[in-house]
Amino acid sequence: MDRQAERSGRTRQHILEAAEQIFAEKGLDGARVDEIAALSGANKRMIYAYFGSKEELYRIVLERIYRRLSEWERFLTDSPEGGQQDVRAALASLVRAYFTFLRENPSYVRMLMWENLYEARHFDAMELGKVRDPLRRALRALLEQGKREGRFRADADEQQVLMTLFACPFNFFSNIHTMSRVMQTDLSADGMIEARAEAVIDMMLAYLAADGKRALQ
Amino acid sequence: MDRQAERSGRTRQHILEAAEQIFAEKGLDGARVDEIAALSGANKRMIYAYFGSKEELYRIVLERIYRRLSEWERFLTDSPEGGQQDVRAALASLVRAYFTFLRENPSYVRMLMWENLYEARHFDAMELGKVRDPLRRALRALLEQGKREGRFRADADEQQVLMTLFACPFNFFSNIHTMSRVMQTDLSADGMIEARAEAVIDMMLAYLAADGKRALQ
Repeated sequence: MDRQAERSGRTRQHILEAAEQIFAEKGLDGARVDEIAALSGANKRMIYAYFGSKEELYRIVLERIYRRLSEWERFLTDSPEGGQQDVRAALASLVRAYFTFLRENPSYVRMLMWENLYEARHFDAMELGKVRDPLRRALRALLEQGKREGRFRADADEQQVLMTLFACPFNFFSNIHTMSRVMQTDLSADGMIEARAEAVIDMMLAYLAADGKRALQ
Repeated sequence: MDRQAERSGRTRQHILEAAEQIFAEKGLDGARVDEIAALSGANKRMIYAYFGSKEELYRIVLERIYRRLSEWERFLTDSPEGGQQDVRAALASLVRAYFTFLRENPSYVRMLMWENLYEARHFDAMELGKVRDPLRRALRALLEQGKREGRFRADADEQQVLMTLFACPFNFFSNIHTMSRVMQTDLSADGMIEARAEAVIDMMLAYLAADGKRALQ
């Protein structure tokens, strides 16, 4: 790569990082290209030259953030054989790993919130095929293993368990501000994330237990 | 009430309804007083005269929406004696009622999303003391009853169960757009809300079961 290509790659990178920060903070409508230019050290003309429009830049940032979840997948497979370890321990690891991912990626949380407020209309333009959801794949494998081994109830519904796996960790971070007020508890205090993760694990395992059909009869 | 007071009460009401619609759609920063004026049929000067500022109007709308959850409480107490009915059936009713409330109050969902993106800074100005959370009170009573009757595990943690009760229904609505895409399932289709509510009930009851301590040992 020659020096000009290197410099241009670096500029692109700076713009993307600044855009992620501003879009996560203010959303697509609230963000201004001037701010992104100022924060990135690039000028406005360059941003348009590289990315075309504010909307297009937003879409690329969203795709990039979403891909991060996919790349993070490797942290899930801490067992080299995959599926050989205890299926309940593996589910617990998956939940803990997702909590960790969300804690370390606050812009993922905020961008998904914005995107839902926009009714996911930029999601449709993303190449979701390339951005496979690692949570879904990991959970599916665990449910298959758990059912095969007779440790998870045979009628556990993948979609419902997946929605719980999405909802509980995500909502802890997305609604932390209002929940802290309503509960009069500082949910950002030390140990709160860990305690929440363990409670979610307990709940999911109680539901999945092979003899756990204790719903209303 | 004389005619002028009546007219002014009606104008106030129209402004609040228009403001709720615009704020829910666009948030505080995205909403413009001009739009609220146009939608309500009032003029901009009247809005400032009645409510002082856009921020103050937003805060009042937020408080009003939040109070709706509190008023809706009466739907929860379908047993006149309160606490006399089967505790598991009562928990199931509570979950179903919250799903129904969220479905019928989309502006509640969106306003809470905006407010979390704003880090709940307008929440602090609300008189939260007056806006007691009916979910927390209802759940506390049920946990006490269930433990007393020996039907719920004695170590069930109120805060953790409450966060699940907040997270699962709320997240279904707040993240419905991105989840529908990721799961390639239209979660707004008929029956989806009901199926989700029953799964959440099953999960909570499995966790709360008195002999349900089946977490990782």
